[in-house]
Amino acid sequence: MNYFSSDFKLGILGGGQLGKMLLFETRKFDIQTYVLDPSDEAPARMACNQFYKGDLMDFETVYEFGKMVDVLTIEIELVNLDALEKLEDEGLKVFPSPKTLRAIQNKGKQKDFYIDNAIPTSKHLRFVDLADLRKSLEKDELDFPFVWKCAEFGYDGNGVKIVRSTLDLINLPDVECIAEDMVPFKNELAVIVCRNPSGEIRTYPVVEMEFHPEANQVEYVICPARIDDKVADKARAIALNVSEKFNHVGLLAVEMFQTEDDEILVNEVAPRPHNSGHYSIEASYTSQFENHIRAVLNLPLGNTASKVAGVMVNLVGSEGYEGQVVYENIEKIMAIDGVTPHIYGKRQTRAFRKMGHVTIVNEDMTVARKIAEEVKNSIRVISG
Amino acid sequence: MNYFSSDFKLGILGGGQLGKMLLFETRKFDIQTYVLDPSDEAPARMACNQFYKGDLMDFETVYEFGKMVDVLTIEIELVNLDALEKLEDEGLKVFPSPKTLRAIQNKGKQKDFYIDNAIPTSKHLRFVDLADLRKSLEKDELDFPFVWKCAEFGYDGNGVKIVRSTLDLINLPDVECIAEDMVPFKNELAVIVCRNPSGEIRTYPVVEMEFHPEANQVEYVICPARIDDKVADKARAIALNVSEKFNHVGLLAVEMFQTEDDEILVNEVAPRPHNSGHYSIEASYTSQFENHIRAVLNLPLGNTASKVAGVMVNLVGSEGYEGQVVYENIEKIMAIDGVTPHIYGKRQTRAFRKMGHVTIVNEDMTVARKIAEEVKNSIRVISG
Repeated sequence: MNYFSSDFKLGILGGGQLGKMLLFETRKFDIQTYVLDPSDEAPARMACNQFYKGDLMDFETVYEFGKMVDVLTIEIELVNLDALEKLEDEGLKVFPSPKTLRAIQNKGKQKDFYIDNAIPTSKHLRFVDLADLRKSLEKDELDFPFVWKCAEFGYDGNGVKIVRSTLDLINLPDVECIAEDMVPFKNELAVIVCRNPSGEIRTYPVVEMEFHPEANQVEYVICPARIDDKVADKARAIALNVSEKFNHVGLLAVEMFQTEDDEILVNEVAPRPHNSGHYSIEASYTSQFENHIRAVLNLPLGNTASKVAGVMVNLVGSEGYEGQVVYENIEKIMAIDGVTPHIYGKRQTRAFRKMGHVTIVNEDMTVARKIAEEVKNSIRVISG
Repeated sequence: MNYFSSDFKLGILGGGQLGKMLLFETRKFDIQTYVLDPSDEAPARMACNQFYKGDLMDFETVYEFGKMVDVLTIEIELVNLDALEKLEDEGLKVFPSPKTLRAIQNKGKQKDFYIDNAIPTSKHLRFVDLADLRKSLEKDELDFPFVWKCAEFGYDGNGVKIVRSTLDLINLPDVECIAEDMVPFKNELAVIVCRNPSGEIRTYPVVEMEFHPEANQVEYVICPARIDDKVADKARAIALNVSEKFNHVGLLAVEMFQTEDDEILVNEVAPRPHNSGHYSIEASYTSQFENHIRAVLNLPLGNTASKVAGVMVNLVGSEGYEGQVVYENIEKIMAIDGVTPHIYGKRQTRAFRKMGHVTIVNEDMTVARKIAEEVKNSIRVISG
């Protein structure tokens, strides 16, 4: 197949910042790209060949979009899977496959999948709704504290809550959900696995994540994680195992906990480019975005090793500001060597909205981490 | 000035591959960009906010385009300078300035500029046309062999010829031209200098260029150049001096000869991103394209040092092929670690047309250089 400067068309479901960053790679390779997104202001609107506005959960919309392209991929997993299944049945290459997506889209099913495949994960219970969960509490099948997660449609800070008493249940949405054991952990880690249809597979180094305690959003992503080689090897091996069991194509970001006694528990996966891999644009030989494109087109995968140490800081809207965005002190951080801001292109800021990220690279991780803190303390996403 | 996700508009004259690669950076920063180019199929058409089709040498076209933007820059130096001067007089920021461009656009004037500013360069004579040059030969003011260059509108392989006898004069165009002494040299080197309006200035490492003997196009660009540190220091110092004398803003690529006795002679300059800096996308902390954007917006400049060794191979159309392009063996080269193809997006190939480039990066220059040869011997730009 000739992808380069040809009539070949790659379809991407979703046009957010992940789609935008994928388009850097399709532009670099001059691969024609069609994007479907519900928003007129999708960050990926500009650099694709054709943009279509439409609902990603609507069968007809996704199906008709899929009919126009030669390979279909995603940058968000909340898409109409029935449409993807019909397209795949009709011969379209859909990566990741609807089967993989179905095993991942519902967090209850995803947890069951780990159990069924003997992949280490925290204990969980599944509930059809809140009443079902309350019944379980009454029967003493479930103890406080636990981690509540809505089974579908949750992301970053939405759909996850630590429940310490019945009071914490009051404002939860009444949806299908799971309750997970609270695992005391030393570190949150992630490994991105890349796999193409030929079965070639590569893992990125283990990264370490620090979360903002309130917003439950990642604050720093650190690559490589500052952990023992033995633990890192274990994390990569588990991520590889998860990838093989899902039989996925494209990227699979595997989020994990490193427990107090250095066990690795799989938390959840995302079958697409992931926030924990943004550092790769500047730090890796081949970025996660380039490797996603290579994988879904069954091209040889690129080198996942790092050239230099990388730390990523998310740029989220400061609390108390809403409206036309201003990146306060961006010029100050750009004056520091090895600092690269990525601005996603959302005009309007609001509290905790993901507006961009900053990558800090340096030969020396200690220096990179120090600069990252300086960056985080300097730049503010406000309105003006 | 707030450039990011704002109403600010950057204008770029020219929409070729250099413009396309500049747009990776404006997209990354979410800076609104307007592009003017004469071709409907300009590689930079897609990722800009507004594309205008028009003649870059036409006063009205360039002037009207400039009126729409807040800062104006170029990716090609052959633009209407009268329009730029008028725009600058009216308060528009134009970088590089029309004054700098005027000193560079005519190669005769450019050579005179080096002489006037005591910058080492080969000897030259200026001629208004071929008859003028022939007269000089008759009067024995000029000896064979010499390097003939047309004074204006020449680029890569066009407008340059080694003249060994009167026979070589027969097919030359009858235009304003210069004749330069043939200097026996060990190496062709280049240094890219970056400078912002505040006067902050940085130089990229010295790169080494190997030319295709027939097409007179660069075959390999090697960073860092495999030369003595003393020679490298001298080349960087001379490039800095050239930059200061031109008082330019943005990038200035300074091409130089390293003579047999290690003297450095300035050959010519380009006041924009340059083929000799393409390696910087993968190898440098800050690519030449990002630094050009930073410079013309008077943002702090990024680190010009390299993370790893880089070698760049141009992808030019193979002789004997014309039509819809096919990149033969591109999958083979993509299977090698550290190899990144850049496809400019020109649908039609023809002999020696610049269609893309491939960057090879590695910790070890010897390995990178070896892979570069493998790449060059594998990939072919043909038609299919």
